Amino acid sequence: MAGADIHHRTEDFRALYSGVLEGLKYFMGTTNDVMVFTSSGTGAMESAISNLFSAGDKALVVCAGKFGERWTEMTRAFGLQVQVLEAPYGDAVTPERVAEALQTDPGIRGVFVQATESSTGVSHDIEAMARAVKGTDALLIVDAITGLGTSHLDIDGWGLDVVIGGSQKAAMIPPGLAFLSLSPKAWERAEPRRSGYFYFDLLKHKKGGEKGESPWTPATSLLLGLAETLRYIRELGRENLIENAQLLAKATREAAVALDLELFAKGIPAAAVTSIRAPNGVSSNDIVKQFKTRFGSIIANGQGSMKGEIFRIAHLGYFDFADLFGVIAELEIILHSLGQKVEFGQGVRRVQQVYVEAAGSQGS
Amino acid sequence: MAGADIHHRTEDFRALYSGVLEGLKYFMGTTNDVMVFTSSGTGAMESAISNLFSAGDKALVVCAGKFGERWTEMTRAFGLQVQVLEAPYGDAVTPERVAEALQTDPGIRGVFVQATESSTGVSHDIEAMARAVKGTDALLIVDAITGLGTSHLDIDGWGLDVVIGGSQKAAMIPPGLAFLSLSPKAWERAEPRRSGYFYFDLLKHKKGGEKGESPWTPATSLLLGLAETLRYIRELGRENLIENAQLLAKATREAAVALDLELFAKGIPAAAVTSIRAPNGVSSNDIVKQFKTRFGSIIANGQGSMKGEIFRIAHLGYFDFADLFGVIAELEIILHSLGQKVEFGQGVRRVQQVYVEAAGSQGS
Repeated sequence: MAGADIHHRTEDFRALYSGVLEGLKYFMGTTNDVMVFTSSGTGAMESAISNLFSAGDKALVVCAGKFGERWTEMTRAFGLQVQVLEAPYGDAVTPERVAEALQTDPGIRGVFVQATESSTGVSHDIEAMARAVKGTDALLIVDAITGLGTSHLDIDGWGLDVVIGGSQKAAMIPPGLAFLSLSPKAWERAEPRRSGYFYFDLLKHKKGGEKGESPWTPATSLLLGLAETLRYIRELGRENLIENAQLLAKATREAAVALDLELFAKGIPAAAVTSIRAPNGVSSNDIVKQFKTRFGSIIANGQGSMKGEIFRIAHLGYFDFADLFGVIAELEIILHSLGQKVEFGQGVRRVQQVYVEAAGSQGS
Repeated sequence: MAGADIHHRTEDFRALYSGVLEGLKYFMGTTNDVMVFTSSGTGAMESAISNLFSAGDKALVVCAGKFGERWTEMTRAFGLQVQVLEAPYGDAVTPERVAEALQTDPGIRGVFVQATESSTGVSHDIEAMARAVKGTDALLIVDAITGLGTSHLDIDGWGLDVVIGGSQKAAMIPPGLAFLSLSPKAWERAEPRRSGYFYFDLLKHKKGGEKGESPWTPATSLLLGLAETLRYIRELGRENLIENAQLLAKATREAAVALDLELFAKGIPAAAVTSIRAPNGVSSNDIVKQFKTRFGSIIANGQGSMKGEIFRIAHLGYFDFADLFGVIAELEIILHSLGQKVEFGQGVRRVQQVYVEAAGSQGS
């Protein structure tokens, strides 16, 4: 790792950094400014709050799971007056509720939402929410950490003011870098400067980025990795990356249904992750544990009150059918070992069929 | 890099994370709580301000270079009332000035200082400053990003309230992780909770750390690297790591003098980096450039108004005599090519002598 490192105040590094910013714009599909931070996605979420809002500002939080709850907690930590539109775990918040809240209170300055709520596996209808926000004073701030590269988000066409991503999801490198795009409407709100932020200063990062520099020492080794994966995404095509995730998600859902399992997400399911209820009388703890101990496969448990109730299979970035055949075959064995009636191959067969149908339609 | 990654909500990761926190305590030589962030060192500096101070609080900034200026800028960005004790570039601020300022204004709530100001290569007398702060209401906050592992800092014995480090210096991995220790006196100031911070929340990181968890997705690949270098530091011994940096710094200074060069730092020179004035009529830009183009060696230029005037040779972490023989030999060739009178070997010889004297005293 040390060998792959380069110093961050050199011409080589400036070229790398500029290339990463351009690659992120391609990946996100936007001409808006893009800034990158050395932090988790939560840091980029914070920058949108601290740079664009003041204590006392009214905010609307769309909350359908653990990451929606993070928006609530964060906006409150910065003293915003927060109204929360909540949906039960597994449901999404409808865009109609957002439109209604904005009509009822035109003083709302920001709407905070997840494109995909990965704790439950649901998607929000960002396009319709953007229509509801358009023409109001509010900014639309979209946590797309698991939404980018897995769902269609037309940042410029729909008018998404802030869109946030992280390095460890569809961008396919380890965690440690976060990035976000800012619309001209959002930049207007970054002036005049507020007090109470420094590390996540958006304007400093924009100005630095224009010179190929990060204002603080950035995570150089991760940027080297990100430059590589962004090059791969450009070769593959952004749309193909998204189609891959969507097809894998579809195959996972159909395999789950073929195995008589219940999908947890209602409405539009996320393509980043599929959440599945553990069968009656079975804890998802045991399913997750057996994936790990028997096969070395990492499947996510539910978070918070969903722990033990659901398990979540991710399918973004490098994840492909070769992985999915294995995961579903493993799932069948695990369900069988936990006393469930399973015909070996019945889930895998469905994944194979989805694959062949899609490959056939591509003429191969 | 992806292959070396592990998921951050697993038992394996919890063991790794707990081990890193223990290893950092050993490296820093403290029993105080240690928290680690995915960020550059600037993020950890910010956490000390946002978690422990409120807008309007009086602060004293010790400023002897570019990183002192960062303290000034950051404390002001958070609305603190800032008094700056400045020293010209190359000089240090004396502890007497700190004691006097604290006596004159007992309302001062925090003293912010660099252990070593790496932009100029000077050290501050942290032990004496800690004596001046002891018994007052102020916290002593020490940026030791280049000071840890290069100078003796008795965190617990001297009563240093906050000590900040970064992964890319003596901890010897690429940038992207920062850490800090907090004294009981500092923790008292973290309660009651203020508003205006979230990502760098110290209490959340302390509570997470006790369970082997980071509250947000951490930079897992960098933590894996850090676990390795901390294991190496424990084997080597913290004191030996410091002695190595100090001996190399001494050899560098003596070689510079042997080459008729002027050292830039007055007072106690830093062991992390040695700053040297370019000879009359020579720009340090040319020296730095030739190191890079002729030998692939990275030597730092001066920052800000010192650019072109000085160059800086680092000697921390893995840096050893094998590196230093080369760097000084290269420097001799570069100075010669820039028209300076140099007898080849006269600087290298001094480095060799320092090495032999030290090796002799160790009985080898």
